Amino acid sequence: MSLLDKTIAEILPVDRGLEAESRAHLDNLTKPAGSLGYLEELAVRYCLATNTLKPRMGKKVIFTFAGDHGVAAEGVSAYPKEVTPQMVRNMLAEGAAVNVLARHAGAEVRVVDIGVDDPLKDAQGLLAKKIRPGTANIAEGPAMTLEEARNAVEVGIELSQEAAAEGAALIGTGEMGIANTTPSSAIFAALLPCEVRDVTGRGTGIDDDTLTHKVAVIEQALAVNKDRLTDPLNTLAAVGGLEIAAICGLILGAASRRVPVAVDGFISSAGALVACRMCPLVQDYLFYSHLSAEAGHAKFFERLNVHPLLDFRMRLGEGTGAALAMLLIEAAVRIYNEMATFDSAGVSKKEG
Amino acid sequence: MSLLDKTIAEILPVDRGLEAESRAHLDNLTKPAGSLGYLEELAVRYCLATNTLKPRMGKKVIFTFAGDHGVAAEGVSAYPKEVTPQMVRNMLAEGAAVNVLARHAGAEVRVVDIGVDDPLKDAQGLLAKKIRPGTANIAEGPAMTLEEARNAVEVGIELSQEAAAEGAALIGTGEMGIANTTPSSAIFAALLPCEVRDVTGRGTGIDDDTLTHKVAVIEQALAVNKDRLTDPLNTLAAVGGLEIAAICGLILGAASRRVPVAVDGFISSAGALVACRMCPLVQDYLFYSHLSAEAGHAKFFERLNVHPLLDFRMRLGEGTGAALAMLLIEAAVRIYNEMATFDSAGVSKKEG
Repeated sequence: MSLLDKTIAEILPVDRGLEAESRAHLDNLTKPAGSLGYLEELAVRYCLATNTLKPRMGKKVIFTFAGDHGVAAEGVSAYPKEVTPQMVRNMLAEGAAVNVLARHAGAEVRVVDIGVDDPLKDAQGLLAKKIRPGTANIAEGPAMTLEEARNAVEVGIELSQEAAAEGAALIGTGEMGIANTTPSSAIFAALLPCEVRDVTGRGTGIDDDTLTHKVAVIEQALAVNKDRLTDPLNTLAAVGGLEIAAICGLILGAASRRVPVAVDGFISSAGALVACRMCPLVQDYLFYSHLSAEAGHAKFFERLNVHPLLDFRMRLGEGTGAALAMLLIEAAVRIYNEMATFDSAGVSKKEG
Repeated sequence: MSLLDKTIAEILPVDRGLEAESRAHLDNLTKPAGSLGYLEELAVRYCLATNTLKPRMGKKVIFTFAGDHGVAAEGVSAYPKEVTPQMVRNMLAEGAAVNVLARHAGAEVRVVDIGVDDPLKDAQGLLAKKIRPGTANIAEGPAMTLEEARNAVEVGIELSQEAAAEGAALIGTGEMGIANTTPSSAIFAALLPCEVRDVTGRGTGIDDDTLTHKVAVIEQALAVNKDRLTDPLNTLAAVGGLEIAAICGLILGAASRRVPVAVDGFISSAGALVACRMCPLVQDYLFYSHLSAEAGHAKFFERLNVHPLLDFRMRLGEGTGAALAMLLIEAAVRIYNEMATFDSAGVSKKEG
């Protein structure tokens, strides 16, 4: 049995029986019932995911997976491919947006080379887990082999399971990879499923002509790989990316250890979608951080019938949205744990 | 010249000339231009409010003003009036929601008795600034005299100006007062202006019949006080509340010292509206924290053409939304200050 199959088998449904009890606890805190809105929903969700009525917040870790994409050769991105390793080094030097926001949220950032097309030999602090130096061009054939896809997923599984063993209480997803909105859109189109144009946007900032071209490239990728889109893992191998695969695995691994996950933005949602299609139970372990400014993200939320925490028009990735979400999730857990009850504070309850 | 008039005279327009420079700085950080969305807008707004291209984040203080309302006698709230002093004591004991969220945000909470109908004699840590023990019933006449309203506003001014002198970098508004959505709705109806039913909601949780009654009570209050609704201060005195007046003053005082303000929810927005009507320049110093679940808050944002940071369906007040907003505003300032530039990190800029 592969680590992937074993991990999926270990993911348990949450115990809905805890829902009423966790809500009763919240209703006994000194505030009108339900008056903290989504903050209360987050607290209940956190209790269910962690399977306890006494949730704790501990170490928070964001994993930022970096990978390159053969499809960048089609001219689908506004940035040159060498930016991927440059940004990896920037993250390791703590100068990227995710570093700043993770610091603010009290989270650690772990940068993982899952498939950068650069040796990154002397990169201090990098988790070297390269499966291959970038994917092949999905417009011409599969991104990677099925075995490579499984290996990338299993890197994600191992990393979140290790973090869980270290005591991580909340895990965030993140990624860096020039052109990676392209395979993400392909994943959405294949697995939601939906029209390519409904889930394809401007990424880091392409113009109208390039957007039209990008849609055509994705449609071509889905056509060329048509016979390979037979299940989630094969779809990932055919039109996905190494960082998307690793995010999928990170989520599965975290859910198998009952560690909730803050899912970052558009690309992370593609990884989450693959994980949810492999194992629908993982949905209850996920907190979607924000609605990305990337066109098509709304379609994803509509189809899954879930709501992101923030609508900040962000479109950076890296784990920046996950870091902000962690601040809000921790706020919810603190409300649950630290507020006085009506009895302890001597406050009168609602009349009638 | 009154402190109120003097303060309004001291409020300066922000220097729009800083906008381009602050955006240029953000565009030089290692991310696609604008890719952090609202977070970048928050950073620019913070620079303009504080009149600098090198913004700092320092001490954060939330002021929670407590006051009672004669109109509670009309049965417009789900909670009995004694909850106001009970909750004041709960806040002083650090057991309320605002205490928990302020702690999470690294903010101090200062609880101010601006008009609680209880002596609160032995309440440790309370800022005793009582103008009168609750307002009169606005359904029968004015809430307070013009002088009392001005005094309450000036308490708010003094508190924010003192906090500014202590080095506060960001001030939050908050309130506690059973029945205070009723005068807030009256303020919105009078000053936006709009129909009462468009800005009246269920407060802490009233039923349909009580909501119909509440609308009728507010319409009666506006009719009874019709001749007094001549300007913002007179309107505040006629149909407002002591905590709403103090919040108005807190905002004016902060703006006069170029300290940005995180405006909490529905009731705080009523105070902000009075401040904006007294001095439209204050708008540029405000960050609206969240869209309250209280029906009518959306109408306020629509009319002012501003957007709140969060949509969390919260309806608690106290400063809880302001505390969450502080986390996001600080995130924005940290992004502005702590990210690497393209040059310093050796990252390639966008092609073409």
